[in-house]
Amino acid sequence: MSDQTIYANLQQLGSSTETPTNPDEAKLEAVKNPHPGTDYLVRFTCPEFTSLCPVTGQPDFAHIVIDYIPEDLLVESKSLKVFLTSFRNHGDFHEACTVGIAKRLVDLLKPKWLRIGGYWYPRGGIPIDVFWQTGEAPKGVWIPDQDVPGYRGRG
Amino acid sequence: MSDQTIYANLQQLGSSTETPTNPDEAKLEAVKNPHPGTDYLVRFTCPEFTSLCPVTGQPDFAHIVIDYIPEDLLVESKSLKVFLTSFRNHGDFHEACTVGIAKRLVDLLKPKWLRIGGYWYPRGGIPIDVFWQTGEAPKGVWIPDQDVPGYRGRG
Amino acid sequence: MSDQTIYANLQQLGSSTETPTNPDEAKLEAVKNPHPGTDYLVRFTCPEFTSLCPVTGQPDFAHIVIDYIPEDLLVESKSLKVFLTSFRNHGDFHEACTVGIAKRLVDLLKPKWLRIGGYWYPRGGIPIDVFWQTGEAPKGVWIPDQDVPGYRGRG
Amino acid sequence: MSDQTIYANLQQLGSSTETPTNPDEAKLEAVKNPHPGTDYLVRFTCPEFTSLCPVTGQPDFAHIVIDYIPEDLLVESKSLKVFLTSFRNHGDFHEACTVGIAKRLVDLLKPKWLRIGGYWYPRGGIPIDVFWQTGEAPKGVWIPDQDVPGYRGRG
Amino acid sequence: MSDQTIYANLQQLGSSTETPTNPDEAKLEAVKNPHPGTDYLVRFTCPEFTSLCPVTGQPDFAHIVIDYIPEDLLVESKSLKVFLTSFRNHGDFHEACTVGIAKRLVDLLKPKWLRIGGYWYPRGGIPIDVFWQTGEAPKGVWIPDQDVPGYRGRG
Amino acid sequence: MSDQTIYANLQQLGSSTETPTNPDEAKLEAVKNPHPGTDYLVRFTCPEFTSLCPVTGQPDFAHIVIDYIPEDLLVESKSLKVFLTSFRNHGDFHEACTVGIAKRLVDLLKPKWLRIGGYWYPRGGIPIDVFWQTGEAPKGVWIPDQDVPGYRGRG
Amino acid sequence: MSDQTIYANLQQLGSSTETPTNPDEAKLEAVKNPHPGTDYLVRFTCPEFTSLCPVTGQPDFAHIVIDYIPEDLLVESKSLKVFLTSFRNHGDFHEACTVGIAKRLVDLLKPKWLRIGGYWYPRGGIPIDVFWQTGEAPKGVWIPDQDVPGYRGRG
Amino acid sequence: MSDQTIYANLQQLGSSTETPTNPDEAKLEAVKNPHPGTDYLVRFTCPEFTSLCPVTGQPDFAHIVIDYIPEDLLVESKSLKVFLTSFRNHGDFHEACTVGIAKRLVDLLKPKWLRIGGYWYPRGGIPIDVFWQTGEAPKGVWIPDQDVPGYRGRG
Amino acid sequence: MSDQTIYANLQQLGSSTETPTNPDEAKLEAVKNPHPGTDYLVRFTCPEFTSLCPVTGQPDFAHIVIDYIPEDLLVESKSLKVFLTSFRNHGDFHEACTVGIAKRLVDLLKPKWLRIGGYWYPRGGIPIDVFWQTGEAPKGVWIPDQDVPGYRGRG
Amino acid sequence: MSDQTIYANLQQLGSSTETPTNPDEAKLEAVKNPHPGTDYLVRFTCPEFTSLCPVTGQPDFAHIVIDYIPEDLLVESKSLKVFLTSFRNHGDFHEACTVGIAKRLVDLLKPKWLRIGGYWYPRGGIPIDVFWQTGEAPKGVWIPDQDVPGYRGRG
Ligand SMILES: [Ca+2]
Ligand SMILES: [Ca+2]
Ligand SMILES: [Ca+2]
Ligand SMILES: [Ca+2]
Ligand SMILES: [Ca+2]
Ligand SMILES: [Ca+2]
Ligand SMILES: [Ca+2]
Ligand SMILES: [Ca+2]
Ligand SMILES: [Ca+2]
Ligand SMILES: [Ca+2]
Ligand SMILES: [Ca+2]
Ligand SMILES: [Ca+2]
Ligand SMILES: [Ca+2]
Ligand SMILES: [Ca+2]
Ligand SMILES: [Ca+2]
Ligand SMILES: [Ca+2]
Repeated sequence: MSDQTIYANLQQLGSSTETPTNPDEAKLEAVKNPHPGTDYLVRFTCPEFTSLCPVTGQPDFAHIVIDYIPEDLLVESKSLKVFLTSFRNHGDFHEACTVGIAKRLVDLLKPKWLRIGGYWYPRGGIPIDVFWQTGEAPKGVWIPDQDVPGYRGRG
Repeated sequence: MSDQTIYANLQQLGSSTETPTNPDEAKLEAVKNPHPGTDYLVRFTCPEFTSLCPVTGQPDFAHIVIDYIPEDLLVESKSLKVFLTSFRNHGDFHEACTVGIAKRLVDLLKPKWLRIGGYWYPRGGIPIDVFWQTGEAPKGVWIPDQDVPGYRGRG
Repeated sequence: MSDQTIYANLQQLGSSTETPTNPDEAKLEAVKNPHPGTDYLVRFTCPEFTSLCPVTGQPDFAHIVIDYIPEDLLVESKSLKVFLTSFRNHGDFHEACTVGIAKRLVDLLKPKWLRIGGYWYPRGGIPIDVFWQTGEAPKGVWIPDQDVPGYRGRG
Repeated sequence: MSDQTIYANLQQLGSSTETPTNPDEAKLEAVKNPHPGTDYLVRFTCPEFTSLCPVTGQPDFAHIVIDYIPEDLLVESKSLKVFLTSFRNHGDFHEACTVGIAKRLVDLLKPKWLRIGGYWYPRGGIPIDVFWQTGEAPKGVWIPDQDVPGYRGRG
Repeated sequence: MSDQTIYANLQQLGSSTETPTNPDEAKLEAVKNPHPGTDYLVRFTCPEFTSLCPVTGQPDFAHIVIDYIPEDLLVESKSLKVFLTSFRNHGDFHEACTVGIAKRLVDLLKPKWLRIGGYWYPRGGIPIDVFWQTGEAPKGVWIPDQDVPGYRGRG
Repeated sequence: MSDQTIYANLQQLGSSTETPTNPDEAKLEAVKNPHPGTDYLVRFTCPEFTSLCPVTGQPDFAHIVIDYIPEDLLVESKSLKVFLTSFRNHGDFHEACTVGIAKRLVDLLKPKWLRIGGYWYPRGGIPIDVFWQTGEAPKGVWIPDQDVPGYRGRG
Repeated sequence: MSDQTIYANLQQLGSSTETPTNPDEAKLEAVKNPHPGTDYLVRFTCPEFTSLCPVTGQPDFAHIVIDYIPEDLLVESKSLKVFLTSFRNHGDFHEACTVGIAKRLVDLLKPKWLRIGGYWYPRGGIPIDVFWQTGEAPKGVWIPDQDVPGYRGRG
Repeated sequence: MSDQTIYANLQQLGSSTETPTNPDEAKLEAVKNPHPGTDYLVRFTCPEFTSLCPVTGQPDFAHIVIDYIPEDLLVESKSLKVFLTSFRNHGDFHEACTVGIAKRLVDLLKPKWLRIGGYWYPRGGIPIDVFWQTGEAPKGVWIPDQDVPGYRGRG
Repeated sequence: MSDQTIYANLQQLGSSTETPTNPDEAKLEAVKNPHPGTDYLVRFTCPEFTSLCPVTGQPDFAHIVIDYIPEDLLVESKSLKVFLTSFRNHGDFHEACTVGIAKRLVDLLKPKWLRIGGYWYPRGGIPIDVFWQTGEAPKGVWIPDQDVPGYRGRG
Repeated sequence: MSDQTIYANLQQLGSSTETPTNPDEAKLEAVKNPHPGTDYLVRFTCPEFTSLCPVTGQPDFAHIVIDYIPEDLLVESKSLKVFLTSFRNHGDFHEACTVGIAKRLVDLLKPKWLRIGGYWYPRGGIPIDVFWQTGEAPKGVWIPDQDVPGYRGRG
């Protein structure tokens, strides 16, 4: 049912890849959407995200969820993983990381619609969540809640 | 209250069936909708889905939920089970499997509306969910959330 | 604050009742709505429902939730319980039971609006849920989600 | 930031109060809304409600949640507690109690909007929930779900 | 990806700060929005809030969640923490604290939209929640539910 | 499999009973243990308990769980319900109510072993739980945890 | 790895069986333990149990969990299901049903050890749980908690 | 069933009390144990605890659970609340606060046994829990798990 | 801190492997325990297990958790995965699969201790769990509960 | 109640620290136990742990919980955080990381007892948990379960 040839030109899938030292070095790759006339949603859940605080250099952690409706392209999932890993030694603020990840994907994919939720671990007892989408969602497409639990403190 | 004769021509219900070797071999069967003038939703929850990765041949697993509003036909539930089982030794990508299952049902049933949620087990630490529906839902029909929990990682 | 005389003609409340042998024998009773000009929702949650499979004669089980907005009548709750109990030795399909219960209530009560959720225990590893409502809900009435958890399999 | 003088005329706050023998005896009190031009929602969650069955005299229990958007007045919270306590030895049906509590508050407060959810403990294995609101909610006001869990039976 | 120079004039970040004795003394600070043309939502979750009851002087506790869509400014997160801490020895009512926090942020930030949920610990067995937003949310911006669990009593 | 004649002399089962005005008036009744040579555990879960504060006269609420291993007698469950209801207008402290209920049952039943957990709703923000058992449990009898969730406050 | 011939003499597996009208009519069947020298635990979880109240004739429901350590025999699972189904039109008390099911299995299997937990749906607002085991568990065998959630009432 | 005269000499119950400025100023009070020959456990759950960091002066928060088996004395619950409140403007480390609270209670009550669990909110992304008991628990007394959920981070 | 050379002779790690057609074909591999004098527990959680029913040929699914205390050898994790995958087209009963997996590991590793929990998806409405360990656990080793949730049915 | 002078010689607390490039470079520091004669347990919960796979160089993630009973020394919590952070660019296997962290703490602190639970994110669909303790726990010390939820897959 699928078009495997769309995977023919990929550079990272199935080969070992060095982790890029920062997001600008990371090579996000796309593949052709096998259902270009079908408005469906793809969700990636990434609970293993870490970056550095640009002020203190200390590690930050986040749980990140990306939803998008493809137009002509899908993001290739291994290159997405490498891209997310490239933040590991890179310093940036929560809002900038979260929105920046989304904008890189938008630049690459030109999707019909995309949103990102960044659920950051608490600093100073107060976690920050960042939510962004490219605009009002297209009508008639199913977009379930992300439903990531809020932070509760203790007890 | 129901029309049991609609089950009279089925080939698989109540007899033992060999598992087809791939989805194209599987014979999805339909029965007449016993409430053709009533817009109701039927949900199948299938936590036992498995297919193969088309690249590595390794097994993939998914939790799949299908919602539809019947027009003239219902899918016969045993044939649905056999159809889902037919992916067991069949290789295809997550997006293709998920949307492909839905399209087979749409072709067979011509339902008023149908949607599918495919909630795949993580690969590389990042699970993919795929959501598709045939279009905007008809007004006045009750369509509850699927509310399948998101992936949390550990802790 | 309530009109207790509306209960004066009931035949089942407070007396012992024999369980009818099938739904057609069951005598669903109504009482006058004590707030006829007030659009409120009544929810009954029935986790103790059982019927028989019309093909195999084996028991089926369901968790059933009924929501309705009364017009002139309320269903008397003991007669509702007896009615639901009358499916115990009665064979019918999931869709037919669920929608059939709702239609009996609609016939009796002529409510402003009614819906039913039937959450059936798994057969063949795949549970079926059936959702029906009488049409688009009246504006300005509060109708909370039923939020019955989905089936998860194991783990 | 608040206008404490609005509490100057209260009769029950800070003094000991005898529990009224029924709701008609209970003196619900109001205070001036400190933010009369601001459309906000106040939620009271009352898991300690009990009344009597008007037929059998046996105790009934409910978990009650009240949401309202104040106009000129707020309900004084201690008088609300005393009012709810006044149902302790008072007999009435579930629908009548729930809607009756709401209407007493509406009479007193003339709020912009109010709703009540009454989540009653099961009788005969079937709990009843009652939901009422004064009409369509005003636009632009934030009204979160009450999200009180449904009854699950056992297991 | 971010504009670190926007942090150049801050007075509290990275230096030790004395806790102000009341909210009026607290110096809330803003920084320039690094994505001024992008409508995203920022959520702060603050489970460590405490103030004093203006009548009895006893401590009150709340779980507070703030959502806003920035216009030109972001609140600087350390100054937000200090501001929230300044309620520690300050007496005010639940409604006044909750709405007051939001209005201070609105005054400072002139955001496109802001809302606050104050989830107060029970007093007299009945917790109060306060929900306020600045008005109808702008179209096309993603604003997830806060989904803070309701109070359940015991059991 | 059971000895129904053990129920022949009961005074309350199946007849309507007036609620006693205090626990001393309540007539707890016993029936013969149908399995006198078998060491099994019986658990009653009572989430509908209420009494009065002996100091203020205000209602208290508790969730109560009773476990016991019968010797010659079982408590008759309707009389247990009436006994628990008799605390409704009776004033006593949490510790006294909880242990007192257990001791009444011990006096009546002379069980092999009994324990009670009283999980009281919070007062002053601090709930009290009371746990008592008649001594070390007999060996070889299965006594599962009560696992009533602790109080969490909010958030 | 298993001895399929142990299934050769079974009468019910794979053929259609009429539901017996009471437990005495039900034919529980055993098969040889394929690991007779290995002390392992088998758990059956049966959330679909229903019987009748011997006093009122009304249906009762339970969630039942059976754990046992086989000696020479295993219970054949389809005959167990038919046995449990045979209580459907049979009247007996909670304690008698629960312990009776266990004793029938003990008589048939002569297991090294067996226990049963019967988690009954509430009647009169108070559910009963019944726990029985054949005696102290053999040393060195792993017997996990059943961890069936307690009844919480509402809220 | 209880001895109310044991409350006759208390100084804080029912009167308004000023919050002491530190734990040494707080007057913990005891009352006679109404069941001196009965080994029962009392649990206090205190989700509203706050103190100051002795190094930075910033607020710390904890969820605290205290279990004890009384000998001759019970702690008077209002004085316990005042004592816990006295840490509000007092600086001390997590371990010292937690164990110190317990030791004050031990000094006052000379209980048969006591334990404390201090579940502190995260600092630097890592919460600390402190658990202390006075020694091995007496045999034959029921001491349920505290079962306070662990910290999960996000996701 | 670790001895990477222990991985030098492995045949499957890092190379692509064909899935064996049955467990007997699967080549389980071991590596030297890097902490041979340290009694620690290793847990593998495998929610993606599937085999075939030996009677009907239909797929079965299980969630499997393996705990062991190594002696001289560790199981190499990729070969464990391949071994578990080898059941995919292999027919065997639940008890035989579960205990058989454990025994293969015991044969290979000669561990100090090992246990397996097999949590099978329901068939006929009744799931089976199988629990086995090699004997009483060694003293002084920490072996946490597996705490896999029980099957709840619906509701 | 605490001895602040024990913190006088620390090198990292309150000053900014560079992250060491590997665990051997990290300087774990100890402080004197303020309660040397008191057997209490300290728990650190660290959901933000990450290291590298020694074979592929790809990041691994874990949720780590450390429990210990101090003898003469406490670990200083900031140096613990820095130590855990030092694994960020360090490659080692799951078992080696987990047990290695514990052994470093044992070397430094010579505690009465210590244990570690390492809950690793899944790789190849199968997460590994590692549990180690220094030996049988001392009698009379309270050591609650860690109760970190198991991995569930999806659904
Ligand atoms: Ca949702
Ligand atoms: Ca939450
Ligand atoms: Ca909390
Ligand atoms: Ca996590
Ligand atoms: Ca929902
Ligand atoms: Ca929800
Ligand atoms: Ca909801
Ligand atoms: Ca929600
Ligand atoms: Ca409750
Ligand atoms: Ca527990
Ligand atoms: Ca347990
Ligand atoms: Ca457990
Ligand atoms: Ca547990
Ligand atoms: Ca259930
Ligand atoms: Ca536990
Ligand atoms: Ca699952």
